[in-house]
Amino acid sequence: MSLIAPLNWRYATKKFDSTQKLSSAQLDELLKATQLAPSSIGLQAYKIIVVEDKAIREKLREAANGQSQITDASQLIIFASETRLDEAYIANYIDYVSEKREIARENLAGFEQMIKGNVNRLSDEQRIAWSNKQVYIALGVLLTAAAEMGIDACPMEGFNAAQFDEILGLKEKELTTVVLAAVGFRSEDDSYSKLVKVRKPEEELFIHI
Amino acid sequence: MSLIAPLNWRYATKKFDSTQKLSSAQLDELLKATQLAPSSIGLQAYKIIVVEDKAIREKLREAANGQSQITDASQLIIFASETRLDEAYIANYIDYVSEKREIARENLAGFEQMIKGNVNRLSDEQRIAWSNKQVYIALGVLLTAAAEMGIDACPMEGFNAAQFDEILGLKEKELTTVVLAAVGFRSEDDSYSKLVKVRKPEEELFIHI
Repeated sequence: MSLIAPLNWRYATKKFDSTQKLSSAQLDELLKATQLAPSSIGLQAYKIIVVEDKAIREKLREAANGQSQITDASQLIIFASETRLDEAYIANYIDYVSEKREIARENLAGFEQMIKGNVNRLSDEQRIAWSNKQVYIALGVLLTAAAEMGIDACPMEGFNAAQFDEILGLKEKELTTVVLAAVGFRSEDDSYSKLVKVRKPEEELFIHI
Repeated sequence: MSLIAPLNWRYATKKFDSTQKLSSAQLDELLKATQLAPSSIGLQAYKIIVVEDKAIREKLREAANGQSQITDASQLIIFASETRLDEAYIANYIDYVSEKREIARENLAGFEQMIKGNVNRLSDEQRIAWSNKQVYIALGVLLTAAAEMGIDACPMEGFNAAQFDEILGLKEKELTTVVLAAVGFRSEDDSYSKLVKVRKPEEELFIHI
């Protein structure tokens, strides 16, 4: 079945029905799809934090201009990039590839050097920007999968990342908050759900060569 | 139907069967799904260039370390960010929202000011980084939609963006190349299609609070 209809159905939900929760099967499937999101070189240099705790969500809401989605959605999903994307991180990834693919570690030396070369070329800032972009692929996969499952979602960039990191204790974990997705079910009186979807017309968005 | 199986089926295709092309209906559906990708504030500050022209693809291949996907895939899809995300761009977007949603222009003044405030806060570099992240949402949607349709794809970051911009004449159009996706059908002898998919295990990727 085409994804066009689900993608037309979805919208950035502003008001969630706080009484409706994802079933554990739904949450599991949504996270599994997100886990499968591709990332550059397969590094997945991020973690995905699924917040249900009410008290923490109240604090996070304050750090996100009071937006109700933070507390009223079924779950708040936080994407956080690894801040220490160094040679040890890469070596660890190669260990894991070796194990999963049953390829001798030494046969992955070239691959490891290639990754290290790519990563070492980047400044710390560029490295985080690069990881952050990969996070947005995962966000795209999550939003598409949610739509396909009839789950509402709201991607959110309007929050204080430093405060989020502080509340969640991310600095100690060498993580930093990148972007959020509140997931759940729209409130029937969310007026935003009635708005016409605005997308650039084909002739403006696409160039055919 | 769950997206888990298609997402497991897909992989970054290294070798395309150059004799197999997407039908025009497939290309149309894939682009329509990508057009529906969400973006911050709905700005979609990018264009999507669908390249079929052989001669241009030969040149682009040289600017991408000779990678065969550039020429052998059915289509090469290039995501390019708008480099001039200024007040005129935003005003134009608001005009379009007003038209599509049949809301009087003056009733969108607050929305317009909010966007301008958000965008003006950013340096030129931050603005492009922000647009680039939105591009990666669209990339995530495209890769998911392709998988769902049984279309192979290879997301690609390994290219010389300045050379791509030059070959495609993007500077004059106030665009810059961000990321690529080659789409088509895998060659039966692409050894990468046989590799076990490596993704961080659940207990490492997810934190539940």
